[in-house]
Amino acid sequence: MADDFERMWAELAPIGRSSASGGYFRQPFLGAETELRAWFGEQVAARGLEVEADGVGNVVAWWDPVGVGAAAPALLTGSHLDSVLDGGAYDGPLGVVSALAALDLLRSRGVRPQRRIGVSVFAEEEGSRFGLACLGSRLATGALSWADAQELRDRDGVFLGDALASVGLPGATEGGLLDLSGVGTFVELHVEQGRDLVDRGAAVGVASEIWPHGRYRFDLTGEANHAGTTRMEDRADPMLTYAMTALAANKQARLSGSRATFGRVEVEPNGTNAVPSRVTAWLDARCASDAELADLVAVVTRQASERAERDGTALVVTAESVSVSVAFDASLARSVAVDHAGGDWPVIPTEAGHDAGILSAAGIPTAMLFVRNPTGVSHSPAESAELPDCLVGVSALADTLERLAR
Amino acid sequence: MADDFERMWAELAPIGRSSASGGYFRQPFLGAETELRAWFGEQVAARGLEVEADGVGNVVAWWDPVGVGAAAPALLTGSHLDSVLDGGAYDGPLGVVSALAALDLLRSRGVRPQRRIGVSVFAEEEGSRFGLACLGSRLATGALSWADAQELRDRDGVFLGDALASVGLPGATEGGLLDLSGVGTFVELHVEQGRDLVDRGAAVGVASEIWPHGRYRFDLTGEANHAGTTRMEDRADPMLTYAMTALAANKQARLSGSRATFGRVEVEPNGTNAVPSRVTAWLDARCASDAELADLVAVVTRQASERAERDGTALVVTAESVSVSVAFDASLARSVAVDHAGGDWPVIPTEAGHDAGILSAAGIPTAMLFVRNPTGVSHSPAESAELPDCLVGVSALADTLERLAR
Repeated sequence: MADDFERMWAELAPIGRSSASGGYFRQPFLGAETELRAWFGEQVAARGLEVEADGVGNVVAWWDPVGVGAAAPALLTGSHLDSVLDGGAYDGPLGVVSALAALDLLRSRGVRPQRRIGVSVFAEEEGSRFGLACLGSRLATGALSWADAQELRDRDGVFLGDALASVGLPGATEGGLLDLSGVGTFVELHVEQGRDLVDRGAAVGVASEIWPHGRYRFDLTGEANHAGTTRMEDRADPMLTYAMTALAANKQARLSGSRATFGRVEVEPNGTNAVPSRVTAWLDARCASDAELADLVAVVTRQASERAERDGTALVVTAESVSVSVAFDASLARSVAVDHAGGDWPVIPTEAGHDAGILSAAGIPTAMLFVRNPTGVSHSPAESAELPDCLVGVSALADTLERLAR
Repeated sequence: MADDFERMWAELAPIGRSSASGGYFRQPFLGAETELRAWFGEQVAARGLEVEADGVGNVVAWWDPVGVGAAAPALLTGSHLDSVLDGGAYDGPLGVVSALAALDLLRSRGVRPQRRIGVSVFAEEEGSRFGLACLGSRLATGALSWADAQELRDRDGVFLGDALASVGLPGATEGGLLDLSGVGTFVELHVEQGRDLVDRGAAVGVASEIWPHGRYRFDLTGEANHAGTTRMEDRADPMLTYAMTALAANKQARLSGSRATFGRVEVEPNGTNAVPSRVTAWLDARCASDAELADLVAVVTRQASERAERDGTALVVTAESVSVSVAFDASLARSVAVDHAGGDWPVIPTEAGHDAGILSAAGIPTAMLFVRNPTGVSHSPAESAELPDCLVGVSALADTLERLAR
C-alpha cells in the first residue's frame, strides 16, 4: 500500500508545478488540470473501475465487485485535483490518491463491499478560476443552477461554457450532471489546513463542522487622473478607500475571533503615474456562526462606505458566494473517529470550505478525515504532510469504507 | 491651418482607443503605437521631410528649406505618441500634431528658417510598459545607458531589446541613438495636466520648471497561507503592510503640499482564499524641491518598515527612477511667453515629467508650451482640450519657431 501511494504521489508531483515558487498552478480546464484528469482516467482504467463523468468535469469511478448496483445506497470517497494559484501539493490530490490507495488496500484485504464504492473528483473546488468555490459539487447537488453557472467568467473574461468546451466538456445541458441521488455516504480525506492536529499530536482527525464563509467583491470606483499634476484634495482615489477597508477587515476579524482576508485585488488602469479609476478587491470572511459572519461583513461594509464618502469614491459590495455553516453527521463522525486500533481520533472544526460541506448541506451523510500538516500552512507551496501520516490516513479511510460497506 | 490640424487629429482618434472606456492604450512597440509611428512616417513623407530614426524608436523629421544643415544649431519641436494605460487623447500626440501643423503654418507664411527645424517623437515617454518614464530621451541624451536599458522588462517579462526587435528596431548597439549634439533649442507643446490655465483664464501657458519626482517600487513579502484556516495572529500578510503604506503616503503628501500616489499594485498569488505571499506596489512621488522629495520618500519608507515589522513582513524599496527638479531656461521662457499678439502667457510650474525636462537637464535650452485642459484631468479618458485653444497653441508654437529660426 505504501508503494502504491508513493508511486501515485510521484506521478503527480511534477504536474503544474512552478519551478520558481515550488507551488502548483492547477486551474480547472487548463493544461495541468487536464493532465491530472488524464492521469486519473489511467488510474481507474488500470483498476477496471467503471467511469461516470458529467458535462462539467465531475467524475466518479465505481468499484462494485459484488454487483450490488443501485440496490444499496452507494459510498463515495474522493476530493478534487485543482489547486489555488501557487498552492500546495496536498490540498485536493491527497484525497484522490488516498481514495485510490484505500480501494487497493480493501482489495488486498479481500473485502467484498455490499455497497458500490465510488472514487470521486469534483471540478473547480477552489474557485480559483471562476470565483465560485465547489463549482462542480454545487452543480451536481443543485445548489447552483446551470443557468447561473453559465454567467461565470474567469479573469480573462472566458465564460465557463467556453472553458469547458476547450477541453471537450459539453456543459450540463448536453453532458448532464452527476446523479448523486443514489449516494448514501460521502467521505472526503483532506490535508489539514491549520495546526490543530500538530498541537494535539494526532496523525489524523475527523471534522465536526465547517465555519460559515463567503466571498464578497468590493467594487470601488473613483476618477483616473495624473499622479503628478492632480492636487491631493482634487482626487477621488479608490486605492485609499481600498487600503482603509483592508485594514478595517483585518482589525474586525481580530476583534471578533473570525477570519477576514483581502488576498485578491485588481486595479484599473494600474499605472504608476495614474490615480486609479477603479479598484476591485475580494473579501474572504469566515466566522464561527452565520450571524457573526453577517455582522463582520456589515461592519466592514459600513466602514468602507464611510471612507468612500470621504474619498469621493463609490462602493458596491456583491456577495459572490456565501456558504452557511455545515455540521457534519455527528454519529458518522463519532464512528469514523472511534473505530480504529490506537484510540479516538480528535473531532475538530474547520474554517475551510470543501465539497464535503456542499454534499452534507444537500442531505448526504458526510464525514471528513484530516491528515496532519506539520507546517500548518495551506494554499501555499509550504503546505505539507509526512508520508507516515498519509499512510495512517489511507488506513483510516479504508477502515471507514470497509465498515460502512458491510 | 485649422483644417490641417483637424484632419490629423481625426486620423489619430481611433488608434488604440478602448471602446469600453473611451481611453487610449498606446503602449510602446505594440499594435496601436506602431500604427501611430506609421502614421507619423506618412505625414513627414508627405511634407518631404528628411527622417532620422534611431535603434530605440526615437525619430526626428527635418525641415531645412534653406539648406543650413549643421551650420547653425538646430531647432527641435515635438512630443511623444505613446500613452499611459487607458490614457487621454492629448498627452503626447497634441505636441506632435501641433508641431506638424506649426510647420505647415510657417510654410504657408513663406518663412525661410535660418536653422534646421526638426519634428521629434521620443519613445516610451510615459514609462507605461518598461516602468521608466522618458526612456527614449534618456537614452538619446545619455542619461540612461543602453546597457542599463537592456535590463528593463515589461509586466510580462519581455526585455526591452526583444520588444524593439518585435517591431523591427535593432536597439542602440546596431541602430545607434539620435544625435542631439547639434540641437540648440527644444520646444515641446503639451496639454496642461492640471487646472492652472483654467483658473487663470488663459488658452496657453509656458513652463517655468518641473517638480522633482520619482518612482519607487515597494516589494513586500510575507507568507502565503489559507485565508480560512490561518489564525489572524499566525499570518505574515503583506497586503496589510501595503494598505498602511498607501494611506501613509497619501497623508504625508497632504501634510507637505506634495503629491504621492500608489496607482499600481501587483499581488501574488492574488487568489481570494489565500493570504498573499507578496505585494509589489509603486509609489509615484513629486515635491517642490529635491530635499522635500527625499524627505517624503524617507518618511513613507520608515512608516512602511515599522508596519512591516508589526506584520512580520519584509520590505525592500527600490528607486526605479528619480528625476531632479528642472528649471527651464528662464529667458527663453520669458521670450516664448511675451512675444504674442494678446499679451503675456502665464509662466507656470508643472508636476509632470516630460522629455523636455530630460533635454533641459542635458543642457539643451528648452521651453514648454501648455494648452488649457478644461477638465484639468489627465492620464484618463476625461483629459480634454478645446479646438480653439489647440489652434492658439499651434500659432504660439509657430511664432516661437519663426522667431528662433531667424
